[in-house]
Amino acid sequence: MGNADCVYPSAGVERSHKVAIPPAQPFVKTFKNTLKETFFPDDPLRQFKNQSPWRKLVLGFQYFFPILEWAPKYSLSFFKSDIVSGITIASLAIPQGISYAKLANLPPILGLYSSFVPPLIYAMMGSSRDLAVGTVAVASLLTASMLGQEVNALENPSLYLHLAFTATLFAGVFQASLGFLRLGFIVDFLSHATIVGFMAGAATVWKWESGVLGCCFLFFLLITRYFSKRRPKFFWISAMAPLTSVVLGSILVYLTHAEKHGVQVIGKLKKGLNPISITDFVFVPPHMTLAIKTGIVTGIIALAEGIAVGRSFSMFKNYHIDGNKEMIAIGMMNVVGSCTSCYLTTGPFSRSAVNYNAGCKTAVSNIVMAIAVMLTLLFLTPLFHYTPIVVLSAIIIAAMLGLIDYEAAIHLWKVDKFDFVVCISAYVGVVFGSVEIGLVIAVAISLMRVLLFVARPRTFVLGNIPDSTIYRNAEQYTNTSNVPGILILEIDAPIYFANSNYLRERISRWIDDEEDRIKSTGETNLQYVILDMTAIGNIDTSGISMFDEVKKNIERRGLKLVLANPGSEVMKKLNKSELIDKIGQEWIYLTVGEAVEACNFMLHTYKPSNNVKDESVDSRV
Amino acid sequence: MGNADCVYPSAGVERSHKVAIPPAQPFVKTFKNTLKETFFPDDPLRQFKNQSPWRKLVLGFQYFFPILEWAPKYSLSFFKSDIVSGITIASLAIPQGISYAKLANLPPILGLYSSFVPPLIYAMMGSSRDLAVGTVAVASLLTASMLGQEVNALENPSLYLHLAFTATLFAGVFQASLGFLRLGFIVDFLSHATIVGFMAGAATVWKWESGVLGCCFLFFLLITRYFSKRRPKFFWISAMAPLTSVVLGSILVYLTHAEKHGVQVIGKLKKGLNPISITDFVFVPPHMTLAIKTGIVTGIIALAEGIAVGRSFSMFKNYHIDGNKEMIAIGMMNVVGSCTSCYLTTGPFSRSAVNYNAGCKTAVSNIVMAIAVMLTLLFLTPLFHYTPIVVLSAIIIAAMLGLIDYEAAIHLWKVDKFDFVVCISAYVGVVFGSVEIGLVIAVAISLMRVLLFVARPRTFVLGNIPDSTIYRNAEQYTNTSNVPGILILEIDAPIYFANSNYLRERISRWIDDEEDRIKSTGETNLQYVILDMTAIGNIDTSGISMFDEVKKNIERRGLKLVLANPGSEVMKKLNKSELIDKIGQEWIYLTVGEAVEACNFMLHTYKPSNNVKDESVDSRV
Repeated sequence: MGNADCVYPSAGVERSHKVAIPPAQPFVKTFKNTLKETFFPDDPLRQFKNQSPWRKLVLGFQYFFPILEWAPKYSLSFFKSDIVSGITIASLAIPQGISYAKLANLPPILGLYSSFVPPLIYAMMGSSRDLAVGTVAVASLLTASMLGQEVNALENPSLYLHLAFTATLFAGVFQASLGFLRLGFIVDFLSHATIVGFMAGAATVWKWESGVLGCCFLFFLLITRYFSKRRPKFFWISAMAPLTSVVLGSILVYLTHAEKHGVQVIGKLKKGLNPISITDFVFVPPHMTLAIKTGIVTGIIALAEGIAVGRSFSMFKNYHIDGNKEMIAIGMMNVVGSCTSCYLTTGPFSRSAVNYNAGCKTAVSNIVMAIAVMLTLLFLTPLFHYTPIVVLSAIIIAAMLGLIDYEAAIHLWKVDKFDFVVCISAYVGVVFGSVEIGLVIAVAISLMRVLLFVARPRTFVLGNIPDSTIYRNAEQYTNTSNVPGILILEIDAPIYFANSNYLRERISRWIDDEEDRIKSTGETNLQYVILDMTAIGNIDTSGISMFDEVKKNIERRGLKLVLANPGSEVMKKLNKSELIDKIGQEWIYLTVGEAVEACNFMLHTYKPSNNVKDESVDSRV
Repeated sequence: MGNADCVYPSAGVERSHKVAIPPAQPFVKTFKNTLKETFFPDDPLRQFKNQSPWRKLVLGFQYFFPILEWAPKYSLSFFKSDIVSGITIASLAIPQGISYAKLANLPPILGLYSSFVPPLIYAMMGSSRDLAVGTVAVASLLTASMLGQEVNALENPSLYLHLAFTATLFAGVFQASLGFLRLGFIVDFLSHATIVGFMAGAATVWKWESGVLGCCFLFFLLITRYFSKRRPKFFWISAMAPLTSVVLGSILVYLTHAEKHGVQVIGKLKKGLNPISITDFVFVPPHMTLAIKTGIVTGIIALAEGIAVGRSFSMFKNYHIDGNKEMIAIGMMNVVGSCTSCYLTTGPFSRSAVNYNAGCKTAVSNIVMAIAVMLTLLFLTPLFHYTPIVVLSAIIIAAMLGLIDYEAAIHLWKVDKFDFVVCISAYVGVVFGSVEIGLVIAVAISLMRVLLFVARPRTFVLGNIPDSTIYRNAEQYTNTSNVPGILILEIDAPIYFANSNYLRERISRWIDDEEDRIKSTGETNLQYVILDMTAIGNIDTSGISMFDEVKKNIERRGLKLVLANPGSEVMKKLNKSELIDKIGQEWIYLTVGEAVEACNFMLHTYKPSNNVKDESVDSRV
C-alpha cells in the first residue's frame, strides 16, 4: 500500500465525464440571489417586469387591494353564488361570534361587531377567494387565559375590554409587520404537529364544568357535524346547526318563561353598529406588556390558522396566494377591527370550509356576511334576548372538541415519532405550564430536530445493485453487494461546524468496521474510500478543514480518498480553499459508478492483490 | 393532457430496478440507534464487547485513567524524548504562567501553581499524548474582564482571588459534566469562525497602553516567533525566547539596580508548593452568580481550545481521542486545580505545539514539566525577584497579537462569506458589547445558517450530460441539455415544516418558469415533472402533506409527478403515510435516467406531440 497516489487513474481508464467547477459568480449577484430566495421566494415583482409606469402604479394598487383586480370582472353568476354562501356563513357567524366572545370573557355583542368590520377590510385587501373572516375558538380562549392572569373580567370589565382591544391592535400591527418585512416564513416554524398539540392543550385547560348543561344541544351539534363530515354534500346541515340551536333554544325559553326560573339567558344586546374604540387603548404600564404579549401570541396563532386555511383552499381551486400579502391583509383587518370594538379575527377553518362548500366565488361572500351581521346588529339583537347560555356553551364545547384532534396525533405517531413528540410536548406544556411555555417548548423541539439532522447526519455504506453500475444504500437495498477493496460512503447532510467533528469520527469508524470485517472474511485489503457527495448541499470552512484532515487520515492508513459527484457549492469551496488540488482533480468523479470503475482499474492493473475474490465484482463496461 | 395517468410506463418499458422500501425496524431498535449516534458516535463501549468481567473492570479503569494503559508499556527511549520536551515546555510555562496570571489580575505565583497540579492530573486522566497543560491568554483575559465587572482586583484582592477559584471549580464541574453526560458535541457549536473572531475581539479590548514599554523584548519575541513559524525545526528558538527574555531582563535589573530607579519588578514570590484553597470558595450571593457565569464562559472556551488542540495532534500521529473522555480529564484537572490554588487551565495550542515539536511521546512530558515547576516553586522563586514587569508585558502582548489571526479572517472571507460574517459578529460583539454578547451573537448566527439551509433549501433544474444517461445541475454543468416535455428538479435538503411551504411555492415557480420558456420557444409541452430525491435525507409529516399537495397541484395542471431515488427515510414515511400508493409505485424510479427513459417512452408511444423538436433529445438506450 502507499504508492496508489503515484499513478493516475486517468493513465489507464478513459475518463468520459469531468466534475465541473461552477462558473464564478460575482459576490453581489450571489448575495442578491440568496436575499431573493430568503425573502421573496414567491417572486412578487414578477408581474411588474417590462410594464409602463402607469401600469406599474395600477398593479401596485391591485397588489395591496386585490379587490381592484377582480371587481371589474365580477359577474352576476358569481354574485348569485356569493350571496348563497354569504348568508350561509352569516348564519354560522352570528351564534359562533356570540359564543366565542363569551369564551374570551368579552361582551357577547363583540362577536357580532367582529363579524362586521374585519370581513369588509379583508374583502378589499385579501387575496383568498374562500377565506371567511371571523373570530376563532383558540384565539378567544388564549385571550381569556392570558389577559385573565392579571385582570379579572368580572371585577374590572372595562379594563379587560380595553386590554383586549389593545392586544388586538398589537396583534394586527405584528401580523402586518411580518408581512411588510417579508418575514412570513416565521409562521412556518409553527409546524402542523405543534399546532395540533397546542390546540388540544388549550382546549383541555378550558373550564369544562361551565358547559355540561347544554347536553342535548351539544349532542345535536356533534351529530350534525359527524353527519356532514361523512357526507360533505350535506355541509349545510352542520353549518345551520348552531343557528337552529339558538333559534330553538330561544323559542323554548320565550314560550316557557324559563328565564324567570333560573335558566340564564344572554339578555339585552345593544342595538346599533360598532362603536369606535380608538380611545380605549391601554398604552401605559403595568398592563401594556401583557397586552403586547397576548397580542403577539394570539396574533401568530391566528395568523398560522388564517394562512394555512387560505393556502389550502387556493390549492383546491388552483390559484395563487401570497403569504406575506395575506399577512398584511389579516394584520390590517385587526388594526381596523381594534379601532371599531372588534377583537382578534382571522380565517377560521370551519367557517371557510362552509364558505367553500356553499360555492363562494370571491370575497364578496364576506361582504354579504358583513351586511347580514349589520342588519342583525341594527334590527335583530332583541331576538337574542331569550337565547339560553347553555346553547352557547354547547356551541363552545363542540368547538373545543373539534380542537382535540386525536386522530391527527395518532397519524403523527404512525408516520413520524418525532413529530408526535413535538405535538405531545406542546400539549403537555400548555396543560401543565402555560400557553407560552407550550409554544416555546414545541418550537424549540422542532428546531432541535432540524439542528440534530445537521449535527448528526446519517451516513451509509453503498453497495452495488446487481447488473448495473448503480450504487445505493446497502441498508435500504438489501440485494446490493460490496466491491472488494473499495469502501463507498454516503453523507446525507451539509458539512458544517456542527457536524464536522462527528463526521470525521464517523468516517474513521466506518473504515475501522470495514477493516475488521475484511480481516475476519479474508477479502481483498481495503485500498480506496469513495465518498458520495451527492447529498452534501453545502460546506463551510470547518467542513473544509475536516475534509483536509479526513484526507490526511485516510492516506496515513495507506488508503486513497476518492470523491463522487460533489455539488456546485462544494466544488466552489473546494476550489477556493485549494483543497481540490490537494485531493487531485483526477480523483473526483461524476458518479460513484465511474469512481468505482477507475478504482477497480487501478486495483487490477497496478496492484494485483493476492486474495482477490471474484464473488462480488460488479458488471461494469 | 390528462390521460397520462391512465397508462402505466411499465406497460412499455422493461423496468430493471425498483426502489426498495427499507425493511421495517422495531421502534425500540431505531430509537436506540438514534440515541447511540447522538450520544455515543465514537462507540466507546466497542472494546468492552465479549470480555470477561475482570477484563471489563480493568478496561473501565483504563478508560478513566489512560495512564494505566500506557504506563506498563513505557520505555526508556520514550522517557528520553519526554524529558527533553518536558524541560522545553517548562521553560515556556514558567514565564508564560507568571505573565498570564498578571493578565488575569491574579498574583503571579498562581501561574506557577497552575503549571504544577493540573498537568499531573491530566497525565493520569488525559488521552492525548501531545497536549501540554497550562493557563491560556484568552481565558486569563476573560477571567479579568468578567470578574472585574463586580470586584476590583486591587481594592479587594482576596475576594477576587476566591472568586477566581470558585469560577475555576464551576468551570471544571461544567466541563466534566458535559463529558459524563456525553454532551461534548455542544462544544462543536462554537465554530472555528466564532473562535477566530472571539479571540481577536478579546485581545482588542485588552488595555494595550500598560505594555508598550517592553518594546525591545516584544520585538525579540515576535522575531523569534516569525522565524520559528517559517522554519518549524527551530521551534525551540521561539520556545526559549520568553525564558531568555526573563533571564536577560532580570540580570539587567540586578546589575543596574534599576528596580530602585522606577523600573517595576515582580518582587518577592512566596517559596513553597500550592497551598490548599478548598476553604476559599464563594458559595453565597451576591457574587456566586458571577462566578458561575465566568466559570461557564471561560470553561467552554478553554474546553474548545483544549479539545481542538488534542484532536489536531492526535490526527498527526494517527491515534484516537475520545472528546467526552478528554472533557472529563480537563474538567477534573480544573476541579482539583481549584482546590489547590490554581486557576483555569487547558491545553494551550502554543505550548502543545512546542511539546509536539520537541518530540514528546506520552503525557510524561507533562509530569516532567510539573516537576520542573515544582523545583522552581521550592527553590528558584527568589530568582524572579528582579524580573521586570515590562518583560511580562511583552510576553502578554506577543500572546495578544497571536490571538488576532487576521490571516484566518481573510481565508474565511475568501472561502465562505457566511463564516466571515460569523467571525466579524463575534469580534464586534466582544469589542462593542461584552464577552457573552459576542459569543451569543456568533453562535446564534451560526445556528441561523443551519436553520436557513433547511428553511430555504436550494433547488435546481437538472439537465442531461451529453452522451450519457446522467442528469446534473444545469447551473454547474453548463453543457447539459434539457429533455423536451420533462422538467427535472432536485431538492437539496430534508423536507421539514420549516421549508414545506417554501418548497411548494418554489416547485410551482419552477414549473411556471419552464412553461413560460416553452411558450416562447415553442418546444414540446411540459408533461412530466421528475423530482430527484437523492439529497432529501429526511421528511416529516408537514413534508408529507406538502408532497401530497404538490402532487395534486401538478396533476391539476395536467402534468404527472415522477420521483427518482427517494432514500430510505423518505420511502419509509411515504409508505407509512400511504402516499406511496397515491403517487403509484410505478412512478418511482431508482435513477433520474430510468425515470426520464420511462417518461420519454410514454411521450413518444402514447402521446406523440405535434411540435416535437429533436434538437435536444438525449442519447438514451
